[in-house]
Amino acid sequence: MSPKITGELLRQLRQAMRNSKYFSEPIQAYIVPSGDAHQSEYIAPSDCRREFICGFNGSAGTAIVTEQHAAMWTDGRYFLQASQQMDNNWSLMKMGLKETPSQEDWLISILPENSKVGVDPWIIAADQWKHMSRALTSAGHSLVAVQDNLIDAVWTDRPERPSTQLRYLGLNYTGISWQEKITALRAKMTKRKVTWFVATALDEIAWLFNLRGADIEYNPVFFAYAIVGMNTIRLFVDLKRLSVPALRDHLQLDSPCKPEMSVHAYPYESVYSELQAICAAHSPKDKVWISDKASCALTQVIPKIHRTPIPYTPLCLAKAVKNATEIQGMKMAHIKDAAALCELFAWLEKEIPKATVTEISAADKAEELRSQQKDFVGLSFPTISSVGPNGAIIHYRPLPETNRTLSLNEVYLIDSGAQYVDGTTDVTRTVHFGTPSAYEKECFTYVLKGHIAVSAAVFPNGTKGHLLDSFARAALWESGLDYLHGTGHGVGCFLNVHEGPCGISYKTFADEPLEAGMIVSDEPGYYEDGAFGIRIENVVLVVPAKPKYNYRNRGSLTFEPLTLVPIQVKMMNTELLTQKERDWVNEYHRICREVIGAELERQGRKGGLEWLIRETQPIA
Amino acid sequence: MSPKITGELLRQLRQAMRNSKYFSEPIQAYIVPSGDAHQSEYIAPSDCRREFICGFNGSAGTAIVTEQHAAMWTDGRYFLQASQQMDNNWSLMKMGLKETPSQEDWLISILPENSKVGVDPWIIAADQWKHMSRALTSAGHSLVAVQDNLIDAVWTDRPERPSTQLRYLGLNYTGISWQEKITALRAKMTKRKVTWFVATALDEIAWLFNLRGADIEYNPVFFAYAIVGMNTIRLFVDLKRLSVPALRDHLQLDSPCKPEMSVHAYPYESVYSELQAICAAHSPKDKVWISDKASCALTQVIPKIHRTPIPYTPLCLAKAVKNATEIQGMKMAHIKDAAALCELFAWLEKEIPKATVTEISAADKAEELRSQQKDFVGLSFPTISSVGPNGAIIHYRPLPETNRTLSLNEVYLIDSGAQYVDGTTDVTRTVHFGTPSAYEKECFTYVLKGHIAVSAAVFPNGTKGHLLDSFARAALWESGLDYLHGTGHGVGCFLNVHEGPCGISYKTFADEPLEAGMIVSDEPGYYEDGAFGIRIENVVLVVPAKPKYNYRNRGSLTFEPLTLVPIQVKMMNTELLTQKERDWVNEYHRICREVIGAELERQGRKGGLEWLIRETQPIA
Repeated sequence: MSPKITGELLRQLRQAMRNSKYFSEPIQAYIVPSGDAHQSEYIAPSDCRREFICGFNGSAGTAIVTEQHAAMWTDGRYFLQASQQMDNNWSLMKMGLKETPSQEDWLISILPENSKVGVDPWIIAADQWKHMSRALTSAGHSLVAVQDNLIDAVWTDRPERPSTQLRYLGLNYTGISWQEKITALRAKMTKRKVTWFVATALDEIAWLFNLRGADIEYNPVFFAYAIVGMNTIRLFVDLKRLSVPALRDHLQLDSPCKPEMSVHAYPYESVYSELQAICAAHSPKDKVWISDKASCALTQVIPKIHRTPIPYTPLCLAKAVKNATEIQGMKMAHIKDAAALCELFAWLEKEIPKATVTEISAADKAEELRSQQKDFVGLSFPTISSVGPNGAIIHYRPLPETNRTLSLNEVYLIDSGAQYVDGTTDVTRTVHFGTPSAYEKECFTYVLKGHIAVSAAVFPNGTKGHLLDSFARAALWESGLDYLHGTGHGVGCFLNVHEGPCGISYKTFADEPLEAGMIVSDEPGYYEDGAFGIRIENVVLVVPAKPKYNYRNRGSLTFEPLTLVPIQVKMMNTELLTQKERDWVNEYHRICREVIGAELERQGRKGGLEWLIRETQPIA
Repeated sequence: MSPKITGELLRQLRQAMRNSKYFSEPIQAYIVPSGDAHQSEYIAPSDCRREFICGFNGSAGTAIVTEQHAAMWTDGRYFLQASQQMDNNWSLMKMGLKETPSQEDWLISILPENSKVGVDPWIIAADQWKHMSRALTSAGHSLVAVQDNLIDAVWTDRPERPSTQLRYLGLNYTGISWQEKITALRAKMTKRKVTWFVATALDEIAWLFNLRGADIEYNPVFFAYAIVGMNTIRLFVDLKRLSVPALRDHLQLDSPCKPEMSVHAYPYESVYSELQAICAAHSPKDKVWISDKASCALTQVIPKIHRTPIPYTPLCLAKAVKNATEIQGMKMAHIKDAAALCELFAWLEKEIPKATVTEISAADKAEELRSQQKDFVGLSFPTISSVGPNGAIIHYRPLPETNRTLSLNEVYLIDSGAQYVDGTTDVTRTVHFGTPSAYEKECFTYVLKGHIAVSAAVFPNGTKGHLLDSFARAALWESGLDYLHGTGHGVGCFLNVHEGPCGISYKTFADEPLEAGMIVSDEPGYYEDGAFGIRIENVVLVVPAKPKYNYRNRGSLTFEPLTLVPIQVKMMNTELLTQKERDWVNEYHRICREVIGAELERQGRKGGLEWLIRETQPIA
């Protein structure tokens, strides 16, 4: 991986920062956040501005350019990758380390007095704007909204915003019609005396209308906004997309008979003016709900007196708790996905001795096998297929220049998943095709102990996921080891592979309590720079537990693994496992064999079936 | 325990709320916080306003009185106690339960439009004022500062503010002179470009000047404020207290030779006007550090442009990390304390069969035995001495009307501690003098497993205490049980038994990372209403750990118990313990026997020694 050469680009950007065409006065620093106007984690090529300016293409990172400096903040998953993708013009700011200053502290430490710091108000979230603005102001500087994006100004071959075909999902996939979802939303609005709700997150809009698109790779979403009132539903979207009659029917577009349950379509760009008009036309008592992660530009359209920013919208909360149809779909998707992976591992075992399989060809094979499964749509994120030292790059993606050959001598980590019409998958397995070292096995076993500790945890109703994070680390900590990422994230149902408002991470305190029906990942790991990476990830469903007692009638919860792919016994030092942990492994493998075995048999996949049977032998 | 009759008092308070003598317009609600002007947890009798108005005398709780309602918020430790101490005029608001509204939500739900909510600005913290004011304003109400306290207006026999004798501590107790502490503080101020620091917390002021008082029962503090500048040190205190020459020497009072290291004394009440004068006299660039928990009244003296509120002051952080002298003192204090407790348990075993020992007499005996130890000053909090169902009242304090007799049939819980000149103790033991039931043993063993899980935890440097909280609960959760309080709090050294900024609790996210030298409690519990209470509490010291590996050179930490009192084996179901847990118990008891045995022998306390030897037999 060779770094992007950015000297000339930075020169042009700094010129734009001084150009009065964009802002009346020169600005001394310009912030380039990661996101798009919807604060999406994955973004369309037209929105990859941070990558364009610094070269780093990981999913999280913020670049800041001043007259003298250029710095980029990212988290532990990306330290290695960012250092390889950025040239010497850039300083890497390692978030989470004690010595790393926050963006605002860094700015304050280097800016001349009374500096202006610019940012595009459409791609900074309202809560981030507020935080940054307050910090800069207290130090005598100011944060200013630069309406024209300065990256776009120097990005001559910037791609267009995508506008892919939309598909609607029937009740057999969604379980609930969009009309029912609107009714539930309005009930919550009535309860909280809110008159308008502005939806800005693309997955929330897709979920609400039971629609899917393909505007952003890996995420079946489409560019849109929605404004829901008590009697109207406005959808802001490229209008050309709604020309299909079946889609117009699905949305009851401009239907005169039941106007409050009819969607009115508006051009995507008109959301600003339309929201302005709504706010102007209504009484000052009208409250408007908008996510505090919505763009600063759109948030500030709503006069403060109307505005009620919320950390999690009612759609985000409703979407997180899967209904019976969605759970059934997720289970089906995971069975198909596991069948494809069993077949992959059987194929790898056969091919690796020939020394012809690379990280890229293994990832391609995984995609090919998944694509043979029913209702396959695409991958749910770029496959992390990594051998030996590449495994230590937490969000590694093999490129021709980094591509390693799989061998009998190195640990292989594959983190992959797919979108099926019935559900989304995300699974990581770490395997060795030869003989792992004692140290590799030891580390793997600590990670496994952490994985089991979370998966088997029983906890009271109302517990937030972050309270489970340390369970995943205890065995690693006891040996002086750790990993620099969270333990789990919410997973959508044929939607984004990362979704809120629940998760399992030491980093957040504002996650919503876990509830039966929520789906999260359980993925502790261990990474030894320059040597290997280990991660064991299942997607798990929150289910009621029935322990012996029931303190204050609160009820208890636990997890049920949806991912059913064997965990390699060869990588375990079973002496380090307790009897309870060995029982967990055996029971998990029994279910894998039973459920996935039947599917492989049905599909006539003998290689995968043989591999599955061998890999699910009970341990003593 | 019979509830306080409050009908007439509430009538008088509501009259005051309408009286234009106190505020120009009638106020529709009046908030009575728990604290004093220093946000102390324990308060002097003159500050017990919430207790005066509602009858509930626990350490945490806020009362709110409106024209129609009176409600009091407290946490899980106090649900039972509060319900017994308050009459029907009051609604108990159980904090932490999902259905309980916050104070602001409750106010908004019941107040007529445009209401005024009053509060004494000296006893509400600045951050609480801000939060409450914002919530009320957004709903069309307002929070107003009522300068005269309305409780004082109806409290005819309110006691005077105490002014006890001050004592100063030598280097053999403190390890560091107050001059060195001032120098360290000024260095931090210089680093952060802060010109003034306002100290408002009583324990921080006592710590800074190596002084102790006895103004508040159990807490060796004295009423004072301090303002430290780069060249001046102002101490605001009842001036009569400084007439002792040795004290004046200790403080270098008004010394002309080294003015920047000389304390200038001012009357306690003059802090407001003096701070006003300081702020008026200085450049607008001068920054003033003040805790965000300081009173709203004092905080608002500082113009916003000067004010830099901080969650934890540099004194709070410095005080939390004990130096070698303090650690040595804490160890000595815990040895003496354990000797007294061994003697107590030996005495109880002998006396209980006579059916003459009550909760109160047992607590008195514990105090008597502690008072025989060297450098004893007093108790560090009211002894919780509770039998059977009283044990389920988490912060129970025996009163003549609730006093139960200790017997061979019920579980006995004693949570007690003392102030010695060399350190502060806090220990809870739960014992049975007859034969505990299988269920009592089962619950005790889960609590013990949680206690051990925290005490033996190894975790990376930089870990915050709240990340360890779930370790204490895992065994209880697995059986469907839990407890409604945090797991640990910071402990002062001959200072407050509860101190920040570290602790072990699911409730906070803003705690500071644990560091070697910090001292916290480890006290999981289980409470069965109407039946029994279990808690096992040690005070533990954060120490470096040396696990096998050292990921990224971060280093690891663990805990060393300072409390050395046997944990009753009779209460354990040892079959539920893992081998590792049994080893922990045996090693802990070995150390108890060795260290406390030597002390008991030295003191010639044969009864205690025999008891200790018997109670520290290894388990198989």
